[in-house]
Amino acid sequence: MIKKVNTIISPTWIYTADKNNTVLEDYSIVVKEDEILDIHPTKNVFDTYDANDVFVLSDHIITPGFINNHTHTAMSLFKGYANDLPLKSWLEDHIWPAEKKHVCEAFVKDGSLIAIAEMIKSGTTTFNDMYFYPSQTAEAAVEMGIRANIGLVVMDFPTNYASDPEDYLKKGFEFRDDWRNEELISTSIAPHAPYTNSDKTLSLISTYAEQLDLSIHTHLHETEDEVKNSIDQFKLTPIQRYNNLGLLGPNLVAAHCVHVDDQDLILLQQNNVNVVHNPSSNLILGSGIADIPKMLDLGINVTVGTDSSASNNRLDILEELRMAALLGKGLSKKPDIFDAKTALKMATYNAARSLNKSKIFGSIEVNKKADIVAINMDSIFSQPVYNPLSTLLYNANQGGVDYVWINGTLKLKAGQLHNIDLDRLKNIANSWKTKIKTT
Amino acid sequence: MIKKVNTIISPTWIYTADKNNTVLEDYSIVVKEDEILDIHPTKNVFDTYDANDVFVLSDHIITPGFINNHTHTAMSLFKGYANDLPLKSWLEDHIWPAEKKHVCEAFVKDGSLIAIAEMIKSGTTTFNDMYFYPSQTAEAAVEMGIRANIGLVVMDFPTNYASDPEDYLKKGFEFRDDWRNEELISTSIAPHAPYTNSDKTLSLISTYAEQLDLSIHTHLHETEDEVKNSIDQFKLTPIQRYNNLGLLGPNLVAAHCVHVDDQDLILLQQNNVNVVHNPSSNLILGSGIADIPKMLDLGINVTVGTDSSASNNRLDILEELRMAALLGKGLSKKPDIFDAKTALKMATYNAARSLNKSKIFGSIEVNKKADIVAINMDSIFSQPVYNPLSTLLYNANQGGVDYVWINGTLKLKAGQLHNIDLDRLKNIANSWKTKIKTT
Repeated sequence: MIKKVNTIISPTWIYTADKNNTVLEDYSIVVKEDEILDIHPTKNVFDTYDANDVFVLSDHIITPGFINNHTHTAMSLFKGYANDLPLKSWLEDHIWPAEKKHVCEAFVKDGSLIAIAEMIKSGTTTFNDMYFYPSQTAEAAVEMGIRANIGLVVMDFPTNYASDPEDYLKKGFEFRDDWRNEELISTSIAPHAPYTNSDKTLSLISTYAEQLDLSIHTHLHETEDEVKNSIDQFKLTPIQRYNNLGLLGPNLVAAHCVHVDDQDLILLQQNNVNVVHNPSSNLILGSGIADIPKMLDLGINVTVGTDSSASNNRLDILEELRMAALLGKGLSKKPDIFDAKTALKMATYNAARSLNKSKIFGSIEVNKKADIVAINMDSIFSQPVYNPLSTLLYNANQGGVDYVWINGTLKLKAGQLHNIDLDRLKNIANSWKTKIKTT
Repeated sequence: MIKKVNTIISPTWIYTADKNNTVLEDYSIVVKEDEILDIHPTKNVFDTYDANDVFVLSDHIITPGFINNHTHTAMSLFKGYANDLPLKSWLEDHIWPAEKKHVCEAFVKDGSLIAIAEMIKSGTTTFNDMYFYPSQTAEAAVEMGIRANIGLVVMDFPTNYASDPEDYLKKGFEFRDDWRNEELISTSIAPHAPYTNSDKTLSLISTYAEQLDLSIHTHLHETEDEVKNSIDQFKLTPIQRYNNLGLLGPNLVAAHCVHVDDQDLILLQQNNVNVVHNPSSNLILGSGIADIPKMLDLGINVTVGTDSSASNNRLDILEELRMAALLGKGLSKKPDIFDAKTALKMATYNAARSLNKSKIFGSIEVNKKADIVAINMDSIFSQPVYNPLSTLLYNANQGGVDYVWINGTLKLKAGQLHNIDLDRLKNIANSWKTKIKTT
């Protein structure tokens, strides 16, 4: 008997990101409601299923939706606002004053909408965020239909959003309670960084995270100065300090980890800490280059992120994967490491695992949520295709992303945002630009 | 009186790459035949000129056509053929055997056609090539209407193309004589590399270059091993050896220069050697990262190239510029260096200067050839635009390249190749893939 389903997608290739990193040829993905019901040989899929929507994508490779594991989405309104400046001046003379002047609920909602449009157009189906006014980011995510893990940010100094650690935590937990039934939204607790949080606050966060079974999202070892200052102040590296305060563990998602010595690497390894590599941001801000090949050798779970539009004008995960692979090869002088499967897994399964969601999404497998991306391999930039995964990693970028489904819903169709008013978003960007430039 | 001209292009911004790196706002470019006749305020350009074709591009920035200063275009047929391999195995087990099996006149013509399509679509209007069967590359260039400086390759070992240095030189000079009246084609003499050319051959080339006033295109200091082996064999670094043989000078275009010590840098500086930075290729092959900030500090003329599709699947100069800027900032830990003007000049004026053509093309100035690129800044990936040059460098890639004129002729229109049959090129790529994969 033929079963009614919602969608059948029949590409040439599927990169599954499953346990064996399987690549399937001439298989179809059968979607029922928000889930992958079956992965079936294309030659007889239509004998078994009848779908409302059928997508025959013979020029395409399918991958699990990408997970951008370190973002500050609202900052897309500062995209290109202060490039090519020394880090200190960038932060103190430009970004912080601009944040003080402009960051409010409307800024966060609008900036998040624009970032999410960029992310969907480049194949991202989940982002792991940290910023102020989390409700606004969540609203934008649900309005756009993207999955978001939202960090409840905590700092020891006041901002427009909150006055002190207690206030940040209170607002964070209120947000968490308000949004707990929205299936696209999940939460982490997010101590901003070792240099913006006191021991007292970090201990408190460690306790909350354990009690509430929350993952933790933080910046860690981003710059040489951060490590040096910590040693000066605490006689400990930030990683050692986090270890003493009980923060290192499999629920910690640590962004950057650029300057990590061998002892600290062992601490990350032994505690099963998840690392987010942000290669473009680390280069643009002059922070340096993380030694990802060494982390992979140690079995550390490495994921990938873009960081914000203020420090990496592109929110394009395919670009970050290519950058990660190229830097890994160039730095290690080993062109045979960091192949396409290694890279693609960072942005899919590994990231889902870091968020404790790998049973729900992050791979193309039966019963997983239907977070699916189809990328065109037929352009003159990709042809000839000898190895589809390799072509995907080295040639593709957002221009090839043609279809995106999130939670079973079509969000990008033939390269165009589906049921999303792009002109409205551009107008929003433009009106904020005028405001930010002139005040 | 109103003057009849061929084309008026009215963008919002023009990056001129002139002596002062001027950026113009609301100016129009007036093209007569193959040249830029005037650069005129848009507000009254139509009072002065009447054009056959008018392009009002209010979402666009114009730049001089990009110059890809190190290519082996024919190798686009090996794009992705052997990725993720150690350098020795990549060359000896894959690329060289495949070249021996497949490289012939038809391979070079077809591969060049495909590479040129990619390059035009990503804003390149001139490429500086080195490969076998130069007539075929020149034919492809003229058929597609792109400018090419073609290296007369010389090696001390036989290939399908030629048997010994005399044979390479003879074939090269025949090519030069045959094509000397074609305005899109110019020539360099191209000793392949220090490790494939004997002292005798290099001396001979030095003499010919001087007598015929030819520029020289070579690979130089690409890998650590190349330098080490040269010291073992000759007690000289390749740069010292080239210096002794009279090859260092303002007519030398040296690709790579990844591993160059301070003494050799001074030799490059003192002799006004031009360097081609190929950042992606150097990373992918595990060669390393050239210290471009130091070269810029020394006033060395730095240009940029993609290298071949076999070692950098993308022939996209905007990607190389972004990579160059990011690596420069990341390695030097100085985010305030390598701004957009520095990067863009490498791919325009600097490269034209390296080929001794800066009076003819490489900048948007009156009486220069009309090699012009228009890049769209209106996408959600670029918005909001605070600084157009910065947005161009950090956000744009081939997806934004909408219009390309070469020598006054429209080659790309609204993102589509103009008067070029793209499907035919894809079929060519595909039929070579089948042949290369199965033999």
